Amino acid sequence: MTPEIITSPTNPLVKSLRALDRKKARSETGLFLAEGARLVEQGLTRGWQAETVLVSQTAQGRDYVSAIMEKAAAAGSRIVEAPERLISKITQKDNPQTVIAAFRQKHRALNDLTATKTGLWIALHEVRDPGNLGTILRTADCAGASGVILLETCCDPYSVETVRASMGSIFDTPFANATFDAFGAWRSHQGARMVAASVNGTVRHDRIDMTGPTVILMGNEQAGLPDTVEAACDDLALIPMRGGADSLNLAQAAAIMTYEAWRQRGFA
Amino acid sequence: MTPEIITSPTNPLVKSLRALDRKKARSETGLFLAEGARLVEQGLTRGWQAETVLVSQTAQGRDYVSAIMEKAAAAGSRIVEAPERLISKITQKDNPQTVIAAFRQKHRALNDLTATKTGLWIALHEVRDPGNLGTILRTADCAGASGVILLETCCDPYSVETVRASMGSIFDTPFANATFDAFGAWRSHQGARMVAASVNGTVRHDRIDMTGPTVILMGNEQAGLPDTVEAACDDLALIPMRGGADSLNLAQAAAIMTYEAWRQRGFA
Repeated sequence: MTPEIITSPTNPLVKSLRALDRKKARSETGLFLAEGARLVEQGLTRGWQAETVLVSQTAQGRDYVSAIMEKAAAAGSRIVEAPERLISKITQKDNPQTVIAAFRQKHRALNDLTATKTGLWIALHEVRDPGNLGTILRTADCAGASGVILLETCCDPYSVETVRASMGSIFDTPFANATFDAFGAWRSHQGARMVAASVNGTVRHDRIDMTGPTVILMGNEQAGLPDTVEAACDDLALIPMRGGADSLNLAQAAAIMTYEAWRQRGFA
Repeated sequence: MTPEIITSPTNPLVKSLRALDRKKARSETGLFLAEGARLVEQGLTRGWQAETVLVSQTAQGRDYVSAIMEKAAAAGSRIVEAPERLISKITQKDNPQTVIAAFRQKHRALNDLTATKTGLWIALHEVRDPGNLGTILRTADCAGASGVILLETCCDPYSVETVRASMGSIFDTPFANATFDAFGAWRSHQGARMVAASVNGTVRHDRIDMTGPTVILMGNEQAGLPDTVEAACDDLALIPMRGGADSLNLAQAAAIMTYEAWRQRGFA
């Protein structure tokens, strides 16, 4: 197939893709940026809609690039070829990827986060660090969790930094935004136990039964969880720490909780 | 106490502190930068030597700042006051911390990583991401591990990014560089089991006995561990992952391994 060719840094496409590093532009367009042939290929394979796929001139003719272009074209994407320096300009990297794409965002509802086997979800309350969110999406993916729930005002899962840190799990781990109230109603309906990891925890995390449907709840990086939210939990889990140590990184704590729940289920 | 005052961006101190974001300058001076009153206070309390403590003019008179200045002065630090914009210039941040300090690096030998209780160490082979290293130092601290061993050529533990990600654990978790050969001799002497987390793992990580002295070995972010290193291990542990998922982030995998070992010891 023959791609459209752009060469000017003032081409409107450069500006519009470049703008996707800002939340406002992502919200207005409903798009987000994925960088790298592997990531773009993964999005296409999982059935995500790429509006535009931009390929570096230097990578033309490589088999994996041709395969991505064919696949994207068949799915109706606009296919564009550009010199490497324009991709550098868009992604603000000196050694840019050979393929980048603007994908259409998906906005799921809580009911789309269907329990896989015995449900195991990770809910994040007011989490603000995009790297943490991406890492947690990746961990949820590895542990086969049923989804990630973003409660109240979390950072944007479609930010460039979150997409990067997710290492492709943005396409595989279902996630949904919800208010705490809507989440509470959904959770009751699921019959899921809500276990929060908290410095106020009273029971060691590995002594809490997480073999049934379970939501693991994690709070904000600095503030943790509000009292009212902790009061609504079935259990407050304490991950052990040596005396004197500061707290674990949020994503580390989420991984320890998630893998403990899965261990209790025999990794089935 | 009365600090020395600097106001010019061309003051040599600004340039020399600014340079500590580069490995070369850190190696030549043997110093590293710690940002933030809490972090600087922690370093001083743990007995690390601050060569220079730089305090923002805007923070003068605050109790916690005065306390840091007194403590640092008593330990022989050079105490300097500067306008906020100079701290911005050094740390390249728009809203800089009120206190930063240049601390003297410590270079420990393997024999300094004394077993605390039953020894548990984390060894990293050719790990390259400063954020991962800082996060792992933090996790090791929380789990009360006996230390972190940096094998062959790892990234610099004293980089600004690692110090930041360690959230103060740079001052608490002992670490040492070593060749794989020197490490092997030391490990034999410790009688420690070497358990590597690997995609080639044959035994589920929670089925490996890590109750005795144990080194958990983690490989490079992209390449994992070389075959020769894996061959030298007592066990290759496989952390379960759902089919189709990509690998866990290195720091996540290290946390899961470390907390599993500690769990087996009853978190004692």
